[in-house]
Amino acid sequence: MGDNDMATIIRNLAEKVSYLEDRQAIVDLMTSYGPAIDAGDADAVAQVWTDDGVYDVDTGVMHGHDEIIEMVRGGMHQGFVQAGCAHILEPGSVVVDGDVAVATAKSLLVVNDERGPGFTVLRATANRWEMVKTDRGWRCRRRIGRLLDGRPAARRLLAGEREGLDDAR
Amino acid sequence: MGDNDMATIIRNLAEKVSYLEDRQAIVDLMTSYGPAIDAGDADAVAQVWTDDGVYDVDTGVMHGHDEIIEMVRGGMHQGFVQAGCAHILEPGSVVVDGDVAVATAKSLLVVNDERGPGFTVLRATANRWEMVKTDRGWRCRRRIGRLLDGRPAARRLLAGEREGLDDAR
Amino acid sequence: MGDNDMATIIRNLAEKVSYLEDRQAIVDLMTSYGPAIDAGDADAVAQVWTDDGVYDVDTGVMHGHDEIIEMVRGGMHQGFVQAGCAHILEPGSVVVDGDVAVATAKSLLVVNDERGPGFTVLRATANRWEMVKTDRGWRCRRRIGRLLDGRPAARRLLAGEREGLDDAR
Repeated sequence: MGDNDMATIIRNLAEKVSYLEDRQAIVDLMTSYGPAIDAGDADAVAQVWTDDGVYDVDTGVMHGHDEIIEMVRGGMHQGFVQAGCAHILEPGSVVVDGDVAVATAKSLLVVNDERGPGFTVLRATANRWEMVKTDRGWRCRRRIGRLLDGRPAARRLLAGEREGLDDAR
Repeated sequence: MGDNDMATIIRNLAEKVSYLEDRQAIVDLMTSYGPAIDAGDADAVAQVWTDDGVYDVDTGVMHGHDEIIEMVRGGMHQGFVQAGCAHILEPGSVVVDGDVAVATAKSLLVVNDERGPGFTVLRATANRWEMVKTDRGWRCRRRIGRLLDGRPAARRLLAGEREGLDDAR
Repeated sequence: MGDNDMATIIRNLAEKVSYLEDRQAIVDLMTSYGPAIDAGDADAVAQVWTDDGVYDVDTGVMHGHDEIIEMVRGGMHQGFVQAGCAHILEPGSVVVDGDVAVATAKSLLVVNDERGPGFTVLRATANRWEMVKTDRGWRCRRRIGRLLDGRPAARRLLAGEREGLDDAR
């Protein structure tokens, strides 16, 4: 094997490793949301997003860290946290295109049922995470959540997982 | 470090990276099912399987893309989709042997409860995915699902996760 | 590219690949728990832990393989298994520091509802897995589980995911 061949093989390997590192970092970003939201740790939740990141849920749209922090500290979310809740996120279906990525995944909001033993599945939500690679690592630019209660928007979100990667830049 | 040593080290690295790429591709195959099934996108669901792939559920066995597509477009599944549903798949326990792999994972079918707020866990299922690496990437040759309602077949499926890798070829 | 440059690049790549292999092995350890616990396979459950590993749940603390095996074979767990149950684990939020790691994740215990069709979410639990790389691969040294029923200990466990890595050695 000549030096040039070796250099080509190494460059090829380095590209593959870089891609796998991105995939790992995207998983790490998505999984960092779960402990933060159920601990009610507003600052840690906000760190999932870019500074001007958007969290667009059917119940309201939050723009930037301050509005996301306000939601976590607000009465509705703190009520769930105090009663006991688990935001369960399944593994996302991820498409990466260079320094942007889209993940599609469902999530469950499971809350402690204060009337008796056991828990209630209060929400099942379709999620789209639009992510970007920044100087500080991968961050969420926009997350869209739509309740899976039969509304067409939730199905469109799931069906369109490969759409809009260019728009995400 | 001599050229021969370097070549050996690089070959060794390339094998490890290839294995990690296979693991990533297997995750990607499994996670591609979720958005497709809950969007009711029959063609995207079928693409998870090889052309002659089998989806063997306790409620019926489907052979090949046409029968899988028929199930997704059928009244029972479309009823769930229209009411709102989430097929949640946990991360699989995966064993790879060259170009075949088996993943064992549970899944939940969560459906919108039209009588009131919240969702019902209609099914909890033990799943076995038998996968093969094809020219077009990893595909499912056979997926077996058995309801976790106490039937021994569901427990045997979970216990036998390392069995039958040779049969899967 | 000189030989020294190449050697440096290769060493750098090898470190990155080694890290990704550790991450994969940690996922494999965590996902191996699921099929074993719902199949009621006590020996396979115990293999998740080091020989002196601890499973500290709010309902009781188990020390070492024998006590873990006793729990799996015990009446409460076998009752769940015979009725049909699914311990669903979401993807963990993982922090690795050399040969120790901590994963934070929620889990659901979903059990077949013998009164009618469908399943009940009996428990939603905050989990902390403290793992160590041994001669036989990654193993769990201590897993802590606390019910998400509003008790502060469960929230502290989720909030403290980055704490105690040094203690874990």
